[in-house]
Amino acid sequence: MATDKKSKLKARLPRGLADRGPGEIATTQAMIEKIRAVYELYGFEPVETPAIEYTDALGKFLPDQDRPNEGVFSFQDDDDQWLSLRYDLTAPLARHVAENFQNIALPYRSYRFGWVFRNEKPGPGRFRQFMQFDADTVGSASPAADAEICMMAADTMEALGIPRGSYVVKVNNRKVLDGVLEAIGLGGDENAGRRLTVLRAIDKLDRLGVEGVRQLLGEGRKDESGDFTKGAGLDANAIEAVVNSIVPGESDPRLEENATAKAGLDELAAIEALIKAAGYGDGRIAIDRTVVRGLEYYTGPVFEVELLLDTKDEKGRPVRFGSVGGGGRYDGLVSRFRGEPVPATGFSIGVSRLQAALQLIGKIDTTPAPGPVVVTVFDRTRLADYQKMVATLRAAGIRSELYLGNPKNMGNQLKYADRRKSPCVVIQGSDEKDHAAGPHVIVKDLLLGAELAKLDKDREDYLQRQAEAQALVPQPDLVAAVRKVLQRHGVRWG
Amino acid sequence: MATDKKSKLKARLPRGLADRGPGEIATTQAMIEKIRAVYELYGFEPVETPAIEYTDALGKFLPDQDRPNEGVFSFQDDDDQWLSLRYDLTAPLARHVAENFQNIALPYRSYRFGWVFRNEKPGPGRFRQFMQFDADTVGSASPAADAEICMMAADTMEALGIPRGSYVVKVNNRKVLDGVLEAIGLGGDENAGRRLTVLRAIDKLDRLGVEGVRQLLGEGRKDESGDFTKGAGLDANAIEAVVNSIVPGESDPRLEENATAKAGLDELAAIEALIKAAGYGDGRIAIDRTVVRGLEYYTGPVFEVELLLDTKDEKGRPVRFGSVGGGGRYDGLVSRFRGEPVPATGFSIGVSRLQAALQLIGKIDTTPAPGPVVVTVFDRTRLADYQKMVATLRAAGIRSELYLGNPKNMGNQLKYADRRKSPCVVIQGSDEKDHAAGPHVIVKDLLLGAELAKLDKDREDYLQRQAEAQALVPQPDLVAAVRKVLQRHGVRWG
Repeated sequence: MATDKKSKLKARLPRGLADRGPGEIATTQAMIEKIRAVYELYGFEPVETPAIEYTDALGKFLPDQDRPNEGVFSFQDDDDQWLSLRYDLTAPLARHVAENFQNIALPYRSYRFGWVFRNEKPGPGRFRQFMQFDADTVGSASPAADAEICMMAADTMEALGIPRGSYVVKVNNRKVLDGVLEAIGLGGDENAGRRLTVLRAIDKLDRLGVEGVRQLLGEGRKDESGDFTKGAGLDANAIEAVVNSIVPGESDPRLEENATAKAGLDELAAIEALIKAAGYGDGRIAIDRTVVRGLEYYTGPVFEVELLLDTKDEKGRPVRFGSVGGGGRYDGLVSRFRGEPVPATGFSIGVSRLQAALQLIGKIDTTPAPGPVVVTVFDRTRLADYQKMVATLRAAGIRSELYLGNPKNMGNQLKYADRRKSPCVVIQGSDEKDHAAGPHVIVKDLLLGAELAKLDKDREDYLQRQAEAQALVPQPDLVAAVRKVLQRHGVRWG
Repeated sequence: MATDKKSKLKARLPRGLADRGPGEIATTQAMIEKIRAVYELYGFEPVETPAIEYTDALGKFLPDQDRPNEGVFSFQDDDDQWLSLRYDLTAPLARHVAENFQNIALPYRSYRFGWVFRNEKPGPGRFRQFMQFDADTVGSASPAADAEICMMAADTMEALGIPRGSYVVKVNNRKVLDGVLEAIGLGGDENAGRRLTVLRAIDKLDRLGVEGVRQLLGEGRKDESGDFTKGAGLDANAIEAVVNSIVPGESDPRLEENATAKAGLDELAAIEALIKAAGYGDGRIAIDRTVVRGLEYYTGPVFEVELLLDTKDEKGRPVRFGSVGGGGRYDGLVSRFRGEPVPATGFSIGVSRLQAALQLIGKIDTTPAPGPVVVTVFDRTRLADYQKMVATLRAAGIRSELYLGNPKNMGNQLKYADRRKSPCVVIQGSDEKDHAAGPHVIVKDLLLGAELAKLDKDREDYLQRQAEAQALVPQPDLVAAVRKVLQRHGVRWG
């Protein structure tokens, strides 16, 4: 092993990747349990796929596919076939359903969570590995399937502690826009590229406003940094037709004349009726014609969950969370493999993104959990004795550990226990071991000790509490004495 | 989307990768909770690292590194630096500790589980993505740290339901063998390659026996298929020295003369004393000089958990599980980054491998969980009404769903409910809806129905039970009637 200072490696992570500590892990775990409970209640069942797939099986449906590496991490297998890390959980599910089509009872409701990978430019809150939690219904073309997904999304937000009124599940239908694009001469396979440019222009409405979108639909747009984004090159008429189809309140009679747009409006009406009948029309779920979603594979209804909270970040700057999840109908994704139509609809929660939002609005308890009880080492020749005390505590279900550092300094051991947020330490020196009434131990309450250090020493209960903070008990009472400390501070065991 | 039969994609996974269904996912989840509980009890805390690391940060310590691609999935970042998928959880932890050295209280006990990736030749039970669950103590050189890891491994096996006597945690020390290798002239950096060949020869003792190992230590060995593996090229004397150091019962006085071997024997004795004092010397943990572990980074004590069960696979062939976990001391792994010694010891459970073993010995309940209650669609114009019934059931905490397939055939809906293992279905046709005493529903108990179908129809309780199996109840009693069915079959809700 290289121990030469000059040749030593730098310990660092690639950009856009991060380690996670106990608090973050516990929060993700709690979120996953809450989401899972809602999905199970709705009759969905778990199914998981691996992180690696054949590149062609995943397809290339990412919003950023204009970048050279297409936003996906890819590498070649031994047999030269291209593999990729999954960039979402939808494309792998489509592959799974197609591969196991004969053994799956349709309609098939399933859910899964896991890490997905995007080879994109990382930024604040934008990672190259992040967690998604998806639910999908494959094999149902019914608007009831779409409506159910939206209701489940709303229930999930509330299960996660987001109050009604602080979120909205927005619903639109891609066919409305597709109809407009047909009407302005952008139909057909040969215009797929330009349609995508239009889609992505609209997807930026939130950030750029109508005028910005108009520019991106036309010649293009220069942003604040001076970078120019080439537009879709539509003429003024076409731009107005597209904008009219998405601006709330405006209704263009030409939409009704186009069969595709008409079908989209009818599906939207059917979903709206089901949502209202179920009582979710109170603002939890709303039709919103500006929602298009950047992913290319949607074929009908599209959904987006937006947090309506405006809050401040740690530096006091205003933060708008925007979308924390989305989805839609992707009737073509399974049929890529099957050569027959297989309707499907689904929804994906950005767990990492939503977790950041919940943290910022104080819906996450960030108090660190108490650490283990630390049994200190007073006499290093008696390691086995101290370890036996730890074993006794653990057998009683009490989280505990032996101090494993250099034991020569008791102060260091107490400092370590403080940093671990230990409720108490156990000490046995020769005085305690050779006690006249048999072996004793000291159980030192670190939390109470910290409180006492801040108190006025003239208070009459000081002495009594000081005695509690450092109890000398017969060794057979070790477990009882430690339990007393845990109880005092509401720490559970066992 | 391509719907042309000829051009359609094949839905398949790359070799050595697999999807996971509800049963497997639930089992892994249960195993993880049990392992986590033991590790927490021992005072370990969670920390996680991402799946992708810089290739140089991971190093190349895999047993199969003689393959051209070194057993690791690698690809280049935008800036041409090489990235790899993690092949274990130890190398990333070393990077994490080195990167955050100033903020970590040593000794640092931590645990983590997650998927790791090996670009190896897959085979039966050998996957290219599998799950590990690791625990490590960084910053303690004490044998008590090693002993603790071994005791925790034993406790974990029992928490997972493996009876005492059916597993053993075997402990050895690399320094013993290192001393022998020094003594026969294989010390020094220039002999690292040959030492590794010796290590891997010994690691195959289980499979090949002493004679096979002798061949691999000497000229080489031809296996059953005729493939020849080149050996370490030791002479007869050296081979005997190596074999004597690993064969149980044999003791070579020359071991005591070599300082390195002596240090290894002393550490082993210290660990053994701690284990005996804690009562784990009853066969749960045993010194075994044949254990070497194939990974290159171990520097002292090495551990291996072996299942002692002999069982049969589904085709009746005998299966020996062998190792389901292992670890050891890797004092050099953190110091690669730090340029100063940082002692560390750890242990890794092969979760996927252990799960397969538990399944085979019947320690895993493979009864499928009951599915959701299915509300059927009798009249497709009344979708919203049926959906409201589902909402009512879900609000009562009952797992339920609306039938989302084509509703024209009630038989298909019942068949679907059977395949979902639904305890009951809810039906409301026009007779029930327009019932003289107000709207009614039929709650059909599918599990009881299946039992009755097997029964003698002359039994006197048949009619009564048949009535129970299909209850007509007023619609406001829907939840109560469904609960009755769930209770009948021990299905929990809420």
